[in-house]
Amino acid sequence: MTTYDLVVLGGGPGGYDAAVEAAAAGLKTALVEANELGGTCLNRGCIPTKLWLGATEAVDGLAAQARLRLASGEIRMDFAALQSRKDKYVAATRKAMAQRLAGLGVDLVAGLGRVAAPGSVEVQTADGPTALGYRHLLVATGSRPGSFPGVAPDGKRVLDSTGLLACAEMPKSLLVVGGGFIGLEMAQAAHRMGAKIILVDALPRLAGAEDPEVSKTLESVFKRQGWDLRLGVKVASVATRGERAVLEFEGGEEISAGAALVAVGRRPNSAGLGLEALGATFNGAGYIQTDARLLAAPDVSAVGDVGGRMLLAHAASHQARYVVRRLLGEEHGPYESGPVPSILYGSPEVFRAGLMAGEAKALGQTVFVSRAQLIANPMAQAHAATAGFVKCVWSEGKVAGITAVGAGVSRLACFATLIIRQGWTREDAENFLFPHPTLDESLKAALMADKEAA
Amino acid sequence: MTTYDLVVLGGGPGGYDAAVEAAAAGLKTALVEANELGGTCLNRGCIPTKLWLGATEAVDGLAAQARLRLASGEIRMDFAALQSRKDKYVAATRKAMAQRLAGLGVDLVAGLGRVAAPGSVEVQTADGPTALGYRHLLVATGSRPGSFPGVAPDGKRVLDSTGLLACAEMPKSLLVVGGGFIGLEMAQAAHRMGAKIILVDALPRLAGAEDPEVSKTLESVFKRQGWDLRLGVKVASVATRGERAVLEFEGGEEISAGAALVAVGRRPNSAGLGLEALGATFNGAGYIQTDARLLAAPDVSAVGDVGGRMLLAHAASHQARYVVRRLLGEEHGPYESGPVPSILYGSPEVFRAGLMAGEAKALGQTVFVSRAQLIANPMAQAHAATAGFVKCVWSEGKVAGITAVGAGVSRLACFATLIIRQGWTREDAENFLFPHPTLDESLKAALMADKEAA
Repeated sequence: MTTYDLVVLGGGPGGYDAAVEAAAAGLKTALVEANELGGTCLNRGCIPTKLWLGATEAVDGLAAQARLRLASGEIRMDFAALQSRKDKYVAATRKAMAQRLAGLGVDLVAGLGRVAAPGSVEVQTADGPTALGYRHLLVATGSRPGSFPGVAPDGKRVLDSTGLLACAEMPKSLLVVGGGFIGLEMAQAAHRMGAKIILVDALPRLAGAEDPEVSKTLESVFKRQGWDLRLGVKVASVATRGERAVLEFEGGEEISAGAALVAVGRRPNSAGLGLEALGATFNGAGYIQTDARLLAAPDVSAVGDVGGRMLLAHAASHQARYVVRRLLGEEHGPYESGPVPSILYGSPEVFRAGLMAGEAKALGQTVFVSRAQLIANPMAQAHAATAGFVKCVWSEGKVAGITAVGAGVSRLACFATLIIRQGWTREDAENFLFPHPTLDESLKAALMADKEAA
Repeated sequence: MTTYDLVVLGGGPGGYDAAVEAAAAGLKTALVEANELGGTCLNRGCIPTKLWLGATEAVDGLAAQARLRLASGEIRMDFAALQSRKDKYVAATRKAMAQRLAGLGVDLVAGLGRVAAPGSVEVQTADGPTALGYRHLLVATGSRPGSFPGVAPDGKRVLDSTGLLACAEMPKSLLVVGGGFIGLEMAQAAHRMGAKIILVDALPRLAGAEDPEVSKTLESVFKRQGWDLRLGVKVASVATRGERAVLEFEGGEEISAGAALVAVGRRPNSAGLGLEALGATFNGAGYIQTDARLLAAPDVSAVGDVGGRMLLAHAASHQARYVVRRLLGEEHGPYESGPVPSILYGSPEVFRAGLMAGEAKALGQTVFVSRAQLIANPMAQAHAATAGFVKCVWSEGKVAGITAVGAGVSRLACFATLIIRQGWTREDAENFLFPHPTLDESLKAALMADKEAA
């Protein structure tokens, strides 16, 4: 049995980045992956969804100008070609990742790994079980689509995000169960490719994790695009009936569509890893409990979705980097993420980093907010996409959070995250030279606007 | 004669912002404008060009996906509707500016102003001359399109940027004389609206003020779009002949098109202002010479294009803010712009801030560069727009400049400008949590890439 300085379970963004950093720093490293390198993000999540959204972006761009009667015409997507392009791109990226791992001397072990005993992982490979010794174990096994009793993918007309991304034909109508970011990104792509959208959520608003004002803007834009929004309603079941997906509400009403997407959150891949015997504990839906140093047990760290802190690829990567630096002795303090940006792509987009007003108030802070509407920005006008705003949350005279919704607001992400991290005052913003004209000036306008108590 | 704390000559970005800031701070302020509020930027420059580019953006978006055979279709622009929309938007913005000035108590004086004597400006208004006394004078009279003997707009088929933006019909072919940012933005908009582009420049490369690698990318993208590029050639004349604009090269060859755009730089509006008598001097093409505090003469400051430091709206605004703060006693040191971002919009875009490698070397610094190609970025892939790169210039281990070219790179502007201003090291970049997937990660990749001597 070979003993490694680091064995990583899971080759998604967290696990892959950890393996690369560790091996580059000279640690003897093995990466165990049961499925495909790149994890959910590359194969079944962020990247394929963005390929869909990028390919179809001009559809909404044209629609926006057409509403002002400045343009007319039509765009036809070739869905089969798009799927083929997506699959090829994803496969090529996986190949490049494997080459990089090999170049750095990382042993890539294909199979499901579990801890057999302290210091030892057993992997079920195609050639039978193999044992890997570890000095440190990093668990980065990610998450998978969640479901509810009666609301579960059946591989026919009821699909999860993985199933919809793999489908051979885009249905003419799509029932989306779940108005979070995953449901909203996939619904937007489907809508641009011609699908009629019926979106259902038990919460009374879209993007229920976001600022309520963001939800309002999203709802108004999607309604204008012709989406059928059914919010604050309870679903009894979703099932395939013949060639249709049929959803039954608790009251008994039924609606149907060519397919249904179940996007009701995600569940951690934490079971069956043998971590209990090492002393690891779990919280919520089974997330691995970690301490301030991301340790789940002695010599065992957990990062990314399976740790449940932030189900975002870049959060996983950032945590992974911390763990490797800690192993290398370059990091001694607790893990600090700072503000973590999150983005919804599409048209509109949503960006958020730092605290929302409600969160800051719940922490007992005296909170002010300031905002600017995109309609006052010339670039929003140029794109005929003026719905939305930028909202700043202030605590003790410093920016503590920024939320934005509207076409193109993802471009604020890095800059806004940095100014939150640096706790800018209004004067800092005033002194910064914003290029003109830019959508970014809507952030400046929000930072300079009169503050009101939240 | 009323005496003002501040009289501003020119209501463009610099003059308008100065008047607003001064009046808001309680200074008695007059703004003298011979033409329209908003200056070149709003009426004849940045804003109308961006309305053209924004309205037509989907044309290039569709073309990019069509090259991958993922989409097909066509987009027809209604040019008359676009012109009407542009004129209405610009007029509404002017009206809002006038209202804001009125609300702040700024006296807006319509007419051409000139210094009659120290402390006094005479304005030729529609009702005859009127005199305004000033304690301080701010000259922000801007610039106008330049021309050469034989290469000058004639109001018929040979137009400057003002003339092209005002035209009633987009010509089927457009001769663009000048491959700088103005020529390139207008040529891109015209191309998207169906005009065949023939672009001529005496310099051997496009965007001659930019990094030579940027020029190469631009040339390759525009050639692929079917532009006829004639670089490093000398123009003898451009003239209207019948219904055509005819360009004659020095060698005698002639080419013609439906119209010609002369975009060969800009000239300062500094003549006839009576500044000589106050002791002001001029440099270059007539730019007002200012000292480190932006003073052109005792009690006279100059900002924006007419001062020639940076012919960019946001540079004018930043200088204006400094002058007002200096008048208010809030600023005592010399004017410091920090890195000033510049942006070319279109597809591709160009962004630059801080030093280019050549500039840093000319300052005697030991310079390294690092770069990342956009083709490695998933968002560039999603937009099927993979030509381009991000390039970082390093001096003494810190980021001293960033240049980028490619679709969407303007989104890097604020963040990149800030990290140059803060002199980030490679480790600073490593620690920053870039959201994934974003085009911004191409900046991260460039910051992390191996450095090579420039």
